[in-house]
Order: sequence, then C-alpha cells, then structure tokens
Amino acid sequence: MKSNEKNGDAGWVHTVSMNPPSLRDNTADADRLKRALQRRLNTEEPIEIGLGLLRRLPSILRESGYRVRCVLFRHRHRWSLVDAQAASDPRPFLGLAVDLGTSRVVLRLLDLSSGDIRAETAFDNPQSAVGPDILARIHAADAPEGLRSLRQRIVDGLNHAVGRLCRDCRTQTDSVVLTVLSGNTAMGHLFLGLPPRWIIREPYIPVVNAPDAFSAAELGLDLNPGACVMVFPNVGSYFGGDLIAGILFAGLDQKEETSLLVDVGTNAEVVIGNRNWLIACAGAAGPALEGGVTRMGMMAGPGAIDRVELDSAAGDIATRTIGGGKPKGICGSGLIDLAAQLFLSGRIDIRGKFVAERCGRRLQTTDGGLGFELVSSAESADGAALIIDQAELDSLIRSKAAMYTILETLTTTVGVDLHEIDTFYVAGTFGSFIDPRSAIAIGMIPDLPLERFHSLGNSSLEGATLALKDPSVQERIEAVRDRITYLELNVNQDFMNRFSAARFLPHTETDRFPSVVERLHR
Amino acid sequence: MKSNEKNGDAGWVHTVSMNPPSLRDNTADADRLKRALQRRLNTEEPIEIGLGLLRRLPSILRESGYRVRCVLFRHRHRWSLVDAQAASDPRPFLGLAVDLGTSRVVLRLLDLSSGDIRAETAFDNPQSAVGPDILARIHAADAPEGLRSLRQRIVDGLNHAVGRLCRDCRTQTDSVVLTVLSGNTAMGHLFLGLPPRWIIREPYIPVVNAPDAFSAAELGLDLNPGACVMVFPNVGSYFGGDLIAGILFAGLDQKEETSLLVDVGTNAEVVIGNRNWLIACAGAAGPALEGGVTRMGMMAGPGAIDRVELDSAAGDIATRTIGGGKPKGICGSGLIDLAAQLFLSGRIDIRGKFVAERCGRRLQTTDGGLGFELVSSAESADGAALIIDQAELDSLIRSKAAMYTILETLTTTVGVDLHEIDTFYVAGTFGSFIDPRSAIAIGMIPDLPLERFHSLGNSSLEGATLALKDPSVQERIEAVRDRITYLELNVNQDFMNRFSAARFLPHTETDRFPSVVERLHR
Repeated sequence: MKSNEKNGDAGWVHTVSMNPPSLRDNTADADRLKRALQRRLNTEEPIEIGLGLLRRLPSILRESGYRVRCVLFRHRHRWSLVDAQAASDPRPFLGLAVDLGTSRVVLRLLDLSSGDIRAETAFDNPQSAVGPDILARIHAADAPEGLRSLRQRIVDGLNHAVGRLCRDCRTQTDSVVLTVLSGNTAMGHLFLGLPPRWIIREPYIPVVNAPDAFSAAELGLDLNPGACVMVFPNVGSYFGGDLIAGILFAGLDQKEETSLLVDVGTNAEVVIGNRNWLIACAGAAGPALEGGVTRMGMMAGPGAIDRVELDSAAGDIATRTIGGGKPKGICGSGLIDLAAQLFLSGRIDIRGKFVAERCGRRLQTTDGGLGFELVSSAESADGAALIIDQAELDSLIRSKAAMYTILETLTTTVGVDLHEIDTFYVAGTFGSFIDPRSAIAIGMIPDLPLERFHSLGNSSLEGATLALKDPSVQERIEAVRDRITYLELNVNQDFMNRFSAARFLPHTETDRFPSVVERLHR
Repeated sequence: MKSNEKNGDAGWVHTVSMNPPSLRDNTADADRLKRALQRRLNTEEPIEIGLGLLRRLPSILRESGYRVRCVLFRHRHRWSLVDAQAASDPRPFLGLAVDLGTSRVVLRLLDLSSGDIRAETAFDNPQSAVGPDILARIHAADAPEGLRSLRQRIVDGLNHAVGRLCRDCRTQTDSVVLTVLSGNTAMGHLFLGLPPRWIIREPYIPVVNAPDAFSAAELGLDLNPGACVMVFPNVGSYFGGDLIAGILFAGLDQKEETSLLVDVGTNAEVVIGNRNWLIACAGAAGPALEGGVTRMGMMAGPGAIDRVELDSAAGDIATRTIGGGKPKGICGSGLIDLAAQLFLSGRIDIRGKFVAERCGRRLQTTDGGLGFELVSSAESADGAALIIDQAELDSLIRSKAAMYTILETLTTTVGVDLHEIDTFYVAGTFGSFIDPRSAIAIGMIPDLPLERFHSLGNSSLEGATLALKDPSVQERIEAVRDRITYLELNVNQDFMNRFSAARFLPHTETDRFPSVVERLHR
C-alpha cells in the first residue's frame, strides 16, 4: 500500500483539492469533484455518487474550502465515491473485513488510511441454531421464510458485532465505509438472501459467481448507509470466495513457482498453480477430519484436546487441552495427532485396525466394537471417558484417503509430481492447527520437507483485509477468476484405485512416505 | 427503433436464450445470463443486476426454460439488467416519461417493446402550494424540512398519478421498469432531494450536472422497486435537462443546417447549432411573456383568452377563450396577440404607449394609469373587466426586448445572421401556443418566413419519451453535454444598446421586420 504521509492517503483514500467554482467555471459540485478524482486516479472511468452523499456534497465542499478526503471503491470498472469529508476532518475512514464462516464469523476493523488494524472480534454463526451444517441450512432456506430468517440471523449477528467493535474503538458505525466479506458459496448466498437451493443439486449451480457490490443500506447493515459491500466471488458451488481470498493472501497467483493450497474440512478444496495457471478442485472428505464423526469430537476451543503426543519415557499417549483444564473432547488437529501416534506406536496397523497387544488396557469393548480410551472418566471434564472406536477410526482413515486421493488426482491431471510443489499452503483456521508431521504420518498429505508447509491462518479474513487495503487486489480477483480452471473430479476407476491405495497407513506404496518409514523404525 | 417482431424486442427489451447449466458448464445463473446478454448486446461492458432481481433469478430462469425477456438500461457505460421474465410471459414492460414542469407535471406511460403510448396524464405541481415560482421553492428548501417536504410533494404526486395511469391501463405499477424525467435544473434537484440553494446564488452552481441513475425504491417511487430512474442532465443552473430533451427531440444535434431552439418563459433559454457545434445561453425575460405581470394574467386553461385577433369588419378587437365560455383572464399567447393587435391597429405606438384617439372608449383611467379594456365587466366570467394598463404593457415590451436581445446577442457572438437560421424551434407547452406572426409583429422574434418556425409542443416530455424508446439517445445526451458551450450573457454596453433598440415596436431598425412594416401599411 503506497501511502502519502502528508494527506494520510493510502489504498482507497484520496485527498483532492479543487478550484472553487466561479462564473468562468460553473461546473456543478458533483461533476467538479468527479473531474478532480478522475484526474487524481488517472482514469476516464465514470465515478458514481450515491444519493445520500450527493445530498450532503454542497455543504461538504463549501465547508472544506474545496479540499476533501474521499473514499472510493472500484468494482469491475465501476468507481463509486463512497464517502467524502473535509480534508481537515480528523474522523477516520474504517473498513470491515469479515470471514463469513459456517460455524464462526470473524470481524476485523481497520483504518483505511493507515491500514492499521483497529479491533477484531468473532461470534458463533447464529445460523447454527437453524442447521449446524451448511446442508441443513440450505434445506431450511427452501422455504422463503427460512431464507429470510437465515439471512436476518447473520445480518443481526454482524450488526451486533460491528456495534461492539465500534464502541470499543470509540467510533461511530457511520465511519465504516467499506466492507469485504469472504466465505464459502452457500454462506455468501445466505448473507445476500439468494436462494442456495441449486448449489447442492446437480449440476450444482450458484445464483451468482461474481456478485456486484451493494450498499450497506440495501443489505440492512448498520454501517455508513452508503458503505460499499463486496462479497468475494466464487468459482462454483464448491469453490467459494474464501478460497479466492486464500489464493490472494498466499500470493499463489503471483509466484513463479508452482504452489498448492488446500483447505481441509468436510470438503477438501485444493488449488494448484502459479502466476501463469491455476487449477482447482474440490471433493468430499467427510466430516471426520474436523472431528465431526467421533462421539468425543468438538470444535477447537477451551476443553478440546488439540495435541496428542507420545510420551517417550512412559511409552504412553499424552494429551494437551486448550485452556489447560480437564478435556471435554477432541478437535480435528487432536484427532489427526491421535491417529498418527496410534499408528507410529504400533497401536493400530497399516489398515488402521487396533493391535490389541500394543494397546493394553486402554483397549475396551464399547457398543461400537473395540475402542481406544484416550482419556479415562476420572481425567475427563464431565466424568465420561473419551474413547475412539474402530468405526470412527475407519471413518477418519477414509477421510484422509479422500484428501490424499484428491491431491494425487489433481497433481496427476496437471502433470505435476507432488514432490515438485514448492510451497504447500494450508488454509483456514482449522488447517492452521494441524501438525503436518501427523498428517504426513497417516498419509493424509504428501511427505514433503516440513519447511514447505505453510499455514495461512484465517486466510479468508486475511484475503478480505487485503481487498480493503490494496485497490490492485480487485484486478487480481478478476484475473484469478478468469484464469482458474475448475476440474470436476470424476470418481472413475483411476480415482477408486488411488483411493483404495490411500486407505492404508500411510499408503500401500510406502516409498512415497520415507520419513514415516524412518519414524516407524526408530 | 429497430424491432424484432418475433420476440417483441425493441429498444431496451431483449430476449435471450441460454443453454441450461450442466456439469460441463456450471456457470452460475446470473453470470450465465450476463454472458448471454453481453453476446446479444455485443459488448464487454459489465452488466449489473440488483439484489431484488438476483434473488428471483433462479426461479425465472428455470421456469422459463432459460429463455427470458429482459429490460436493460445503459447509463454512462454501465449496463443494468432492470427486470427479466419468461419469454412466454405476456406481461408488458412499461416505461414512464415525465415532464417535471414547475407548474404542471405531465406523465406518459409507454410499452417498451412496441414503443406504443399506453396512457397520459398530468397534474398541477403540488409544490406550488409551497411557492408558486421556482425561486420561492428554492428559498423554502433552505430549511432541511422544507426540502424534504418539497421532494415528498412531487414524489407523492407522481405516485398518485402513476397509480391512476396503471389502473386505467389495467396493469401493475410493478410493470413500470424505466423512468426518464426531464425538467429544469431546480426541479430536478427538488425531485432528487438535492439542496438547490447554490443554483440561484452567484456563481450559480448546481449540486450535479449529470446525475447517475437511481432505483425507484431509493427515490420512493412506487414502481418496480428495481426500476431505473434517470433524470436528464443539465448544462448549468439556467440550462436544464428539459432543454437537452428539447435539443434531442428537435434533432438539433444531428442536422447539417444551423437551427435555433428557444424556450420562452420567465427565463428565455436559447440554443443554436448543428451536428458540429451547439452554443446555448439563457437570460431573464421576466414573467410578462407568460402573462405573469398582468392582473388579468393566468395560466393557459379553461377561461383563458389564448387568441386576440382584429375583427377586420368591425375594426375592433376580438378574443377567443379556451373552452369557449366567458373569459376569466388572459394567458401568455393571448397577451402577445393582444400587444401585436394593439400595435398593428395603431392603438399603441412604436414606444408601446396608448394612442388615445385610436383606442376610443376602451381606454380608461385605472389606478395604474391609462388602461385598455379588453373585456368589459359584462362580458367577463366573474364580472370584473379585463384590463391591461400602461405599466403592464411596458413590462411586456421589456420582456420581448430581452428575448430579442438574447437572440441577437447569441447569433452575433457566434457570427450567424438571424436570417440564416434554417429552423426556429419553439420549445415548451407555452411556446406552442404563441402565434409567430404576433411575436414577430412586436419584434420578440426575428422576421423569418413563417414556415421556418416549428413548434415542438412538450419537447421535454418528447425528449424523455425518446430516451425510453431509443438506447442510442444515451450517447446523444452525452455528446450534447460534451459539445454544448454555454455562453454567459454579459450585460455590457453592447447588450444594453441592443436592448434599448429592441424596446421599440417592432424595433428601431424597422428594416429588420419587413413583414411587419408591410402589415402596418396594409
């Protein structure tokens, strides 16, 4: 972001001076300002001014002595003048970045002039009360009242959170003039009130891939009424705006080297490419990777086991709990750790089956068959033992096999060896917590040197932040959308053969995982 | 307007077919339709779709079998998809043209597919209750509540009238998807709720010359909520959108020959030019030409004398009343006729002073000095004689002198002889009623052959109608705005000399008016 220190101009903020009108130059206020801005932006593209700002413009110009600081926004060759105030006015122009997560919504408020983060907050997606997963919500949205209510829940949640953020920063919600939201395709639809029905029905068609920018007022957001609201475009029903945000944040579209970005979740979304080409695909990995199929599974948060390690002294398995208290359950990263440690310690075999003699007394008979007791009832937070049974373990292995098969199929299709990948980006909050060593140990991801793995954190939020700070991101978004090829994963014989091979730990072809072989023999 | 009979496509209406989505082509609904429309329009300019239509789009596409009739609108390189429905849906798409007059508002509803006029109506501008003339309204708008109330009055009036029009046509207001309004600069501002304060204060600056298009919903118009509303741009505070509409309707911007267009009113607005250049000016002519300074003056309407002729048999003056009943007053065209007949019959001299011996008993002493009784108390509608006194006559002559001086100054400045003008267009409803022979007789307009005068009728409404019917008009509007030069009338010694010479009937230089000299001597 280039910054003009003197004016506090940067990104979307521009300060312009005009000659005051005279009998010789009686151009109208709005046209005068547009002319000055077009000169400043070095563009002939038209600039639009909303009705609300237009009505205030004569006072703003005259009281400022024709020197104003403006927020502009450009969306697909269309410039909007979002707000303007006297250059001497100390009030900040704020931008709001939103990660519109299915389960959790994260907000970040930033100063558009400096790019500084002013505050952050998050809240559980209130749509979860209607449906815990996105599929249930899409079905609920089939009724018009259902869609309205789902939309209202997220809008209310956002308004509540923004109000709190602004109070904490001692600023008015009116100062928020730009908002960029990033989420999966269905969440984007529910936020805009678009019927998501056809997203989940063959041939899987969103209402819109590249939504136009809307005003805060028409979306019911309590910000500056003229605030521009941009929702990140998607590539398809199963490749959402959050992934585009991730590509931008990782800079996948700008690198010479070929990188891979994967968002691990119920759906595994993968994109591979570089500055010249981008190929994406998505496939169902099942909820197991997020801890969703185990009875003890839970979201990452206080009380969740997020790390499982082998206590080499005791030869036993040790857990770490978020917050440090007694464990209530296990989250996705803990589950992947657990499977890795069970395998590395010989407690499960290459088929993922319990090896009784290695499990000892932790192996119990449950109503789901054999089960491994990770935490005893005495050590758990609510007095119930935390157990993973064979069926749950099988489900986890199917998920990791799906993940690996998707990666293998994509790279094979584009003719890139998995080992040629320069950087392996893991997107999404959940992905950030996965220990790559564990994911490699079970053969979920390829056995690359650890330094090639790069966790992006909340890349959806970071991508939205980039779009608020850097106007050139708009062109990158368009370029990514134009360039990206979506590969439909055909579940054909090749795919099934790869999947079958990937259902072993780490894989039937163990020479693909030399580091795991080495750890097994240590 | 090119019309595709088969589809009922014309102007802004386009029918497109799309391939239904498939696994091979899973482009989203909106993007699919935009792609088809861009192909159809042969453009790469982006097309915007409002939120309301976007939400309905999946059903519209699927229920239509992917064959839809669309209304588009293009405003400054920005296409909007305003509405869409199944190609088989018989409901019409309607457009609304509005002449936003200071005293009278005229509405015309037309079918956008056929261009056929469906209905027309008019109502007195309800803002008159706040201020009869535009100046009073501009002062009233200085208070924010005043502006809001003035805006609400015109919006309420429009909504009421549109509702009635639609009921008469047995159609829904929802079918009205485009609206084009044309009016003077101040009326445009009051309609949009823009403070008109600086229009009347030196250096006379409007809030906006070229307003963007807005939606019916944000303007409070009860039409299709997504209807595009366009207000004709102005060139300045004293050269409004109604004049641009007039230029378009007359085709001044397309003709090889140099023509002149004049809108006669309290302000005389004049534009001269051809397909290569356009020069405009405006000047105060005073309210006399509209009958505004005489006690017996009134708007054209039932009971108004609109024609005054010399009864050659009786040698006396005869009047014609609109509606045929007893006269209540005299409107502008009647007043110009009256002055012409008084002059041609020798009842007033070249200075405009009453000649007692020629007036006979009609000349009376009033509290305003000598007065000419046009209608006796016995013959008038309300029992009061209709009289014009010397002061009123002087005022009318000052106005006609101002009009002629403006015309002369403009043509002199651009180096065109008044007699070189190919067509002399008279714009505005009021202008249509003026008898050019009378206007020439008093030297208000140049002595051109009568066939060169062309009355445009309500050219403001006709220009708005054109913009609804013909998409190419948008480019013409932009071209006219770019090309037109506004000439500031400097009231210098030259102007005053011309004005003094024009204060005689018809003019001090009588050889400029040979036809009048001939009539005088007949």
